[in-house]
Parts: sequence; structure tokens; C-alpha cells
Amino acid sequence: MARHPVKTDFPVSQVRRYLEPGPIVLVSSRWQGRANIMTMGWHTVMEFTPSLVGCVIASSNHSFHMVRSSGECVINLPTTKLTDEVVGIGNTSGADIDKFAQFGLTMAEAAKVGAPLIRECHANFECRLHDDALVDRYNFFIFEVVRAHVAATPKHPETLHYTGDGMFMVSGNVISRRSLFRPGML
Amino acid sequence: MARHPVKTDFPVSQVRRYLEPGPIVLVSSRWQGRANIMTMGWHTVMEFTPSLVGCVIASSNHSFHMVRSSGECVINLPTTKLTDEVVGIGNTSGADIDKFAQFGLTMAEAAKVGAPLIRECHANFECRLHDDALVDRYNFFIFEVVRAHVAATPKHPETLHYTGDGMFMVSGNVISRRSLFRPGML
Repeated sequence: MARHPVKTDFPVSQVRRYLEPGPIVLVSSRWQGRANIMTMGWHTVMEFTPSLVGCVIASSNHSFHMVRSSGECVINLPTTKLTDEVVGIGNTSGADIDKFAQFGLTMAEAAKVGAPLIRECHANFECRLHDDALVDRYNFFIFEVVRAHVAATPKHPETLHYTGDGMFMVSGNVISRRSLFRPGML
Repeated sequence: MARHPVKTDFPVSQVRRYLEPGPIVLVSSRWQGRANIMTMGWHTVMEFTPSLVGCVIASSNHSFHMVRSSGECVINLPTTKLTDEVVGIGNTSGADIDKFAQFGLTMAEAAKVGAPLIRECHANFECRLHDDALVDRYNFFIFEVVRAHVAATPKHPETLHYTGDGMFMVSGNVISRRSLFRPGML
């Protein structure tokens, strides 16, 4: 698998394809000329159109103020080949280190937001803050995905699903029950 | 694997163990003497203590008014052995059928809420509505898990993760990076 998979535009209304299964993701941000990355496991799709994703970014994270101040971020989808980077990023702070440099990750410019894409990830979802009504109470941000980039292969990448306690479940095998769905319910 | 696994109390502050990986879940509810079940894929952990889970229940679901009116539900965790039930429940409406009867599922009484547990599921999380601030705008409910019941085995059940289009990813294989975590970050 290429270290820097070639990605093409993907419909923002269909990002549930990658986020609804609940993978751990990497959130990249940029503010006042500095970029950072955090590992995030608490997120959910909220709407197809506009393409909304809700997520918890604890205020103790260095990324919290960067995301809130810029009103932007990129949600990047790592696969199992980035397991150690995912763990390293989650166990360090952007207050202390440059995570792109430390973990050998490469930035690319986004199309619609100032936050950088992570080239090594399978997919990148450019996000703008849509609603901050629950940020003060729950650190809960609602973003709109405004542009999506996805690698064409593999079609079903192996993703990481965090259980706590240093343990991840791995998804990748796929089963179809398409024939059992009513039209409109897929 | 037993059709009705024996479950024991599980700490509500640790339900992220089962929900953070992002599995499809079954939401059971009871209102005015009738019970119902819906399939749900849009949910996220929001806090350890109190144990908060946010989720989208579209207002077009028969369960929406039952959950909102009762202020309670149970989030049940199915494994792959219930794949066809998960799909059937997601493709039918409680306005038309009794889903427990139709899909051969068994109710058990909850300890703290009026909604029934589904015995065939691997885990049951009893929930009370904690905050409905975003229900009108996004159909987004924030529940507190007030009691949790989990089967002792298997330790890492195979769960279903919905991608849309009738396709599920399966999680079950586990990888540990526990040794790479800082204390307090697990």
C-alpha cells in the first residue's frame, strides 16, 4: 500500500461510509502559523446534508483552542499501518512537540480550510465549525464536512476502533446484507 | 455461544469499552405499555462520569416519540450472530409490527428504567435522558447510562459497524499497544 495514497474528491454527503463505523481518527488543525494533530475516538455522524459530524475535543487538549479559534479542522482516517503513530499522537501534546515532524507525517494543503491534510491517511475530511452550542457544557463540536478526499484503494481499509485500556479492535472484513434492505433504507 | 448470555453488572463509567468502537446498536424503548426496538448507528461517548452517550434518533422513527416521552431507553449491543435481526429491525417500523415478536427477541426488565433489555444482546446499557437541548435542531439526544449489564464471555465479541449501502464492517480482532501509553492516558 502506498505511503501517500492518491486521493480523489468524495461526496461529502456520503462520509458516513467511513465515519459511521466508529474508527479512531486524527484531527489536524492550524492556528497562528502552527499545526497540530490529536487522536479522537468520540465522534458521530449527525446529518447527511449538510454533512454534519459531532465530536468531543476535551478542553485539556492543545488542539481545543486551535480548533475553536480557527473554527476549522481536518478529520483524517488512519488505517492499521499507522497504529503506532495514532498511539504516539494520543500520548503526546502539541504544547511540547511538533507532531508532524515527530511522527514522520506529511502535510498537504486543504482546499477549503486552513488546517492541513495528513497525506499518509486513507481519507481526509475538511471541516468547518457549524455549531458550538454544546462546546462550553460538553466540549462537543458540530462540524460541517465541506470537502472530502478518499483513496480509491483499498475499498475497505483496515481501521482502528479504540476500546480504552490501550486496546484497539480492528475492522476490515465486510459482510453484505444489501438484499435485505428496503429501497430508501440503505 | 449461549442464546441468552448471562450478564453481570458493569461499571457505567467504562461503557466506552463497548461503545467507543462505534458498533451498530439496538435501542429499546417502552411507552404507554408498548415496547419497540430500533437500529442505531449514529452515537458517541461524551463523558465518563456521569456516563454520557449522545445519539441521533431521527424524528421519523417510531421510537422517537417513545424515547422522548418516556425520557428513557436501553442501548443494547448485538453481535454478528444477530446480523439479520439488526437489519430486519432497521427495515421495519414499530408502527406496523411488534419487533420483539417478529424477530424472536426476548425482553427482560431493566433495573432502573422502564424500557426493556434485549436478552439476546451481549450488553445492555440502561439510559435516562440527560439533556434534550439539541433534540429539536438535530434529533440529538444526550443520555446518561445509569446501569450496565455485560456478558462475561466472549471478552471481545464480534460487533457490526455500518457503512451504509447494506454493508457492515466486522470488528473482533484485537491489537494491544498498552505498553506505549502513558499512565493516565489509557
